[in-house]
Amino acid sequence: MHYCCFLNKRKTNTLKNCGFWSKVLIHIHQNVRSIKQLEYAVLARRANQIQKELSQGVRKPYKELIDVCWGDPHSMDVKPLTFVRQVLAACVYPELMSSHKLPLDVRQRAQWLLGRCDGGSVGSYLAPTGIPEIVQRMSESIRSRDGGVPCNPDNIFISPGSQWSLTNIIQVLVNNEAPLRTGILTPVPCHVTTIMSIKSLGAAVIPYFLSEEHGWALQVEELQRALESAKGGCNPVALYVINPGNPAGYVQSRKSIQEVIQFASEKRLFLLADEVYQDCVYGKNSEFVSYKRVLAEMGPPFSDTVELASFHSVSKGFMGECGLRGGYVELVNLDPNVVKYIFNLICKDSTTPVLAHFAMDLMMNPPRPGDPSYPLYNQVRNNMLVQNVKTAHEVVNSLPGFSCQPVEGGAFVFPRVFLPPRAIQKAKEEGMQPDTFYCMRLLEEMGVLVSPGCEYGQKEGTYHIRFCIMASQDIIDQVLKRLTTFHTKFMKDFS
Amino acid sequence: MHYCCFLNKRKTNTLKNCGFWSKVLIHIHQNVRSIKQLEYAVLARRANQIQKELSQGVRKPYKELIDVCWGDPHSMDVKPLTFVRQVLAACVYPELMSSHKLPLDVRQRAQWLLGRCDGGSVGSYLAPTGIPEIVQRMSESIRSRDGGVPCNPDNIFISPGSQWSLTNIIQVLVNNEAPLRTGILTPVPCHVTTIMSIKSLGAAVIPYFLSEEHGWALQVEELQRALESAKGGCNPVALYVINPGNPAGYVQSRKSIQEVIQFASEKRLFLLADEVYQDCVYGKNSEFVSYKRVLAEMGPPFSDTVELASFHSVSKGFMGECGLRGGYVELVNLDPNVVKYIFNLICKDSTTPVLAHFAMDLMMNPPRPGDPSYPLYNQVRNNMLVQNVKTAHEVVNSLPGFSCQPVEGGAFVFPRVFLPPRAIQKAKEEGMQPDTFYCMRLLEEMGVLVSPGCEYGQKEGTYHIRFCIMASQDIIDQVLKRLTTFHTKFMKDFS
Ligand SMILES: Cc1ncc(COP(=O)(O)O)c(C=O)c1O
Ligand SMILES: Cc1ncc(COP(=O)(O)O)c(C=O)c1O
Repeated sequence: MHYCCFLNKRKTNTLKNCGFWSKVLIHIHQNVRSIKQLEYAVLARRANQIQKELSQGVRKPYKELIDVCWGDPHSMDVKPLTFVRQVLAACVYPELMSSHKLPLDVRQRAQWLLGRCDGGSVGSYLAPTGIPEIVQRMSESIRSRDGGVPCNPDNIFISPGSQWSLTNIIQVLVNNEAPLRTGILTPVPCHVTTIMSIKSLGAAVIPYFLSEEHGWALQVEELQRALESAKGGCNPVALYVINPGNPAGYVQSRKSIQEVIQFASEKRLFLLADEVYQDCVYGKNSEFVSYKRVLAEMGPPFSDTVELASFHSVSKGFMGECGLRGGYVELVNLDPNVVKYIFNLICKDSTTPVLAHFAMDLMMNPPRPGDPSYPLYNQVRNNMLVQNVKTAHEVVNSLPGFSCQPVEGGAFVFPRVFLPPRAIQKAKEEGMQPDTFYCMRLLEEMGVLVSPGCEYGQKEGTYHIRFCIMASQDIIDQVLKRLTTFHTKFMKDFS
Repeated sequence: MHYCCFLNKRKTNTLKNCGFWSKVLIHIHQNVRSIKQLEYAVLARRANQIQKELSQGVRKPYKELIDVCWGDPHSMDVKPLTFVRQVLAACVYPELMSSHKLPLDVRQRAQWLLGRCDGGSVGSYLAPTGIPEIVQRMSESIRSRDGGVPCNPDNIFISPGSQWSLTNIIQVLVNNEAPLRTGILTPVPCHVTTIMSIKSLGAAVIPYFLSEEHGWALQVEELQRALESAKGGCNPVALYVINPGNPAGYVQSRKSIQEVIQFASEKRLFLLADEVYQDCVYGKNSEFVSYKRVLAEMGPPFSDTVELASFHSVSKGFMGECGLRGGYVELVNLDPNVVKYIFNLICKDSTTPVLAHFAMDLMMNPPRPGDPSYPLYNQVRNNMLVQNVKTAHEVVNSLPGFSCQPVEGGAFVFPRVFLPPRAIQKAKEEGMQPDTFYCMRLLEEMGVLVSPGCEYGQKEGTYHIRFCIMASQDIIDQVLKRLTTFHTKFMKDFS
């Protein structure tokens, strides 16, 4: 949908033979240039070459390339949850239910889910608004997550991934015909895809910096500063927050959320709360509290005026089912007619497969104590990431020149790396950002692909790397081992 | 993406409290009105009520409502293909492969498919351009379908359903900033969703009538007339064809396709070939020939200049997997840079789940003679619909006042019904289109939901109904029995 902006700029409208595509070609060159500018693209290209070289038998100090750039758990050998996959397999091939190899709760759940489909098949079209009983159960689960704060199923929309919902809600907020561009306050550092969505929809990114020294805290004075800075340049209508964080692994406290809500209320900003990592909290003293819950607890006038969209996904959390494409948005405090209208608009383009709706039900209503699938489910759920986070944080922090804030939640470690001036100089000579240079070296010498902080935004003069900890323990161990060897040598070489 | 048109028209851009949504509310009312205007919506609403009444025990002349409005085979008790579901289940839950209950070719295919995913899991993110090996195999299968006409995998894009591709390609063609609206030639009658897509993208529908008397033939003189009629009103850039047809069940001959291509070439029109029913051909003397093949066979200058987009889907054909959301578009004769650019643009919003990519591979590369799964697969594939079409066509044509052209392909029967003047008069009194009135009565009295011809467009003064024959034989038998009883009474009542 982004490209309508571009295509509308075409002034000619005749076909190829008579130049229909000629304007497109001009844009192709511009586009290729802008893709090249993405720091990560340089690394990805080199990683592809290395992959090819390895497969052709070229000798390197490593046999395999390890890619820990993305929040894509299964690609990094995290095993899918047995309960989830058993239910989905039984839904796809119901003949499996006649055997008693599958636990009873698996068969019961599959039967219930299939009963919600026309003809009892995952091959039937769904109503664009989804399966009412599933949405109803989701609303109950959200209510219980939020300590009883009411949740109206009419305010929930299941979409093909959460990013899809986020992009579509942003599009509703953007007004490309106003004299001033629509502005959206976004954190630095920030999940890149959202930045790209905002820009491609024609809106302006208003960056606000998280305070690394304070564990990546979101400070209201900084929001204030950012808003001031936007004056005259654009028309700020929304505030985007990621909690728990990506790339930085903070978890906002209740108090911090209250302050943000108060600010949004004062400035009449629409709150976009990206809460896809809500099930990924590792800090002993941290707890995920939803924006919606805090908003409700604050009482009037906040609880009935501040408008909020909250996003969640089956891609993240302990489920990690990115390939199924299931997410949702819950809208809070919007006029019911507006909600209906927005959902009506966006459902026309929605293409959420039936199995993503089912996966959503499984995520929101997991096995409970007493269910046959509970013991295994619970064991995996609890152990999966805590050890990875602990090890990664310790190892990275033990390296001279690295400093990593506590990783309380999310999927990533985002340490600051203090690069020696000679390394920065060398990067400049090679036409790279200093942290891209660092990542490129790590890739070249050790076959580990991590991403540079400049990709996500960072305070000038600071450098970071990001890697995902939603990986098997083996992979994390390998990454840390290779990083340690590399970093020690790198610091020596450039000291 | 449609609604950007609307949202851009908002002139205010402040939040709810200060009127942000007030403009939205105006549009809500307009929108509600336009939905109400859809003939089908009236019927669907009543069907919902009847469903409720039945479940509350209200006595009716029937115990169950039968809905044969949509091309949604599994919802009408068509069984999914065992091979397809076994492979997908094994991909979802690979533990199934260790048992020998699944045929060898199923296990091999599942293994191959999983080998194409990072970490060997359907839970990993895919590259937005899809899995190269699957696209490669698709291109080989298209090439063999087309008797060896080359097929470049770079021209294929897998999308979440075929309608998604169609809408996105249309959007690329539409120029909303030109003084004249972009026009697209579309058949009458026509698949409704495409009409809605075209309109919501801001383009103009230029209707051309298919000739019912000639078996719904597409006649070039009519294309000519339609194009002339558009002069000055819009700028025609594309010609949309559906072959095999929907709602009418024609299959275009090679000669007819040649004429259309020649016309498109002369008038420099982009060809949009909706070929989702290519595997649904029943006529003894009819054969599906793709636009791409005919184009290639015509030789230069046609074969290297006429631009074409061809669409296909796992939703239709003998697979009928609508809920998985898998489709593709193949672009022909576009500059490779333009293709790359278009795919680059549209892939940003694409959300095709991994399993839809797999389903595409299964559709395009079904079991072959000699494979363990072949015998069952082949049996289902051959028998599924031919009998339904035959029975439906015979029964409908035997009813006085009905006339149905041969159903050579597609998923629907679309007979003409000659309504008595008194019925037309009565419909007018009730504020309904005459064929909607007929459908409403059928629904009310017999609990069968079919859709009225006015929904798809028809020559003035003619009336039709449409129903899907991709249903179990039981359902088709029931529908025909109820229709016969109803129709006989209806004609008597209004004669
Ligand atoms: C903060 C954040 N939001 C949204 C998403 C998108 O997830 P989905 O797969 O549901 O579109 C991601 C994925 O990495 C993410 O990190
Ligand atoms: C002619 C035609 N094109 C496209 C489609 C859409 O199919 P998909 O499910 O692949 O989006 C349909 C569905 O009925 C159809 O009849």
